[in-house]
Amino acid sequence: MDRNAPVGVFDSGVGGLTVAREIMRQIPDERIIYFGDTARLPYGSKSRDTVIRYSRQIIRFLRTMEVKAIVIACNTASSYALEVVQSETDIPVIGVINAGARTAVSATRNKKIGVIGTEGTIGSGIYTEVMRKMRPDIEVFAKSCPLFVPLVEEGLLHDSVTDEIASRYLSELKGKYIDTLVLGCTHYPLLRSTLRRLLGEEVILVNPAYETAVELRELLMHQNLNRQKDEADNKEKYQFFVSDLAEKFTSFATAILPGEVKETRKINIEEY
Amino acid sequence: MDRNAPVGVFDSGVGGLTVAREIMRQIPDERIIYFGDTARLPYGSKSRDTVIRYSRQIIRFLRTMEVKAIVIACNTASSYALEVVQSETDIPVIGVINAGARTAVSATRNKKIGVIGTEGTIGSGIYTEVMRKMRPDIEVFAKSCPLFVPLVEEGLLHDSVTDEIASRYLSELKGKYIDTLVLGCTHYPLLRSTLRRLLGEEVILVNPAYETAVELRELLMHQNLNRQKDEADNKEKYQFFVSDLAEKFTSFATAILPGEVKETRKINIEEY
Repeated sequence: MDRNAPVGVFDSGVGGLTVAREIMRQIPDERIIYFGDTARLPYGSKSRDTVIRYSRQIIRFLRTMEVKAIVIACNTASSYALEVVQSETDIPVIGVINAGARTAVSATRNKKIGVIGTEGTIGSGIYTEVMRKMRPDIEVFAKSCPLFVPLVEEGLLHDSVTDEIASRYLSELKGKYIDTLVLGCTHYPLLRSTLRRLLGEEVILVNPAYETAVELRELLMHQNLNRQKDEADNKEKYQFFVSDLAEKFTSFATAILPGEVKETRKINIEEY
Repeated sequence: MDRNAPVGVFDSGVGGLTVAREIMRQIPDERIIYFGDTARLPYGSKSRDTVIRYSRQIIRFLRTMEVKAIVIACNTASSYALEVVQSETDIPVIGVINAGARTAVSATRNKKIGVIGTEGTIGSGIYTEVMRKMRPDIEVFAKSCPLFVPLVEEGLLHDSVTDEIASRYLSELKGKYIDTLVLGCTHYPLLRSTLRRLLGEEVILVNPAYETAVELRELLMHQNLNRQKDEADNKEKYQFFVSDLAEKFTSFATAILPGEVKETRKINIEEY
């Protein structure tokens, strides 16, 4: 395996860019191939079988780009597909669930953790399973929040409607006196200020993106896969691919990543 | 062409069932093959190219079922794909736009018509184009309402949040004194009571589903394609196919169609 090869990162759309951004910050030497499945998003309301099939196609595409490791930067795909694709793939594949779960489990003091996510992520029960395996004495309260992604995509980040919906979704979790909340969907950190206001300062909000980048860095180091700077290498450092609406993706990516995104290429993912 | 063959009806998901229901009511002799693209929905936020590609795959699937005519029961797919697929297909294909436009144009008295729909439908400008071709002296005011589909799917049909969002979306149209509003997305008739309350009794709400079934009936009659009752025919009258989540679709279809839906079959639409 070429340690100077890029890392593959994928998501159903733009949400996984928050994970890519953390990787860029924490391991700035690494090259990244990002894929967003914008022709088939969202994943959160689709079935396990379908999300696994989509993930396999994307991994086949990323392998054609000769990536050395893959990060599933989507909670739903991590929930449904991680174990299956790990067993089929001879390069390291990591998801966002373990990292988020580990942070939450070590952060909680009263052993009551909340998790919010899509219907797929919450319905899979994976956060609860993983966290209780790490620490059997904790209680996990999970709640799906299907309107959060459309509200974020409509740009209603600071809005009375979003407050009202968030207040309904969180009322049950507040009643359980959780002291830690896992933001189990890559869109949700954009609602951080609304969630913070509703839950109060004392509840710790866990964004799995940060810990996922830590996990990737450690994994690459231990397997001697971390990139060695190569001055002669003129390849584009970050490359972006989507299955639809490349220009819209480019503007969004430029808004949330540190540098300018020059180009996003559209591919037909169904061919993989 | 076998006049006793079924009619194909498709949509990105369950919304087109409102069109299927009108066909069942108005031309009860006809057999229907329904396809809902639940693995790739929604269509409203995707590109023209992608929606055309998806529509072509679905038409190829419906042709394998030997349908005699096809109804695109999705406003976004009708907006983007109808003309293209009509030119490629040797059986009749109709969409929902013409029927809705014709009803609105003959209903308006003050010649000010509003249209609401997905980003795709409204962005395509097709309702405005078609209605102004039918009657050049009318004014058309179009507004995309991206949160309506998620709100309907979350079941918030009668809810203060839906009222608030609808009030924002409609305020511009109200200011134009429209007397007719086209519900340019198959989910929107489910918000009829909210829209009615906001717009008042005097504004006519046009649901293209009804007129689409009228158009289909006339087309089948004129082309001698209307089904002759055949007592020996034991085939299932209505068959349902989806690309994902067949059981969920079955419950939904049973709730909105007159009879029980016994089975929905899942197919891999990407293979067509």
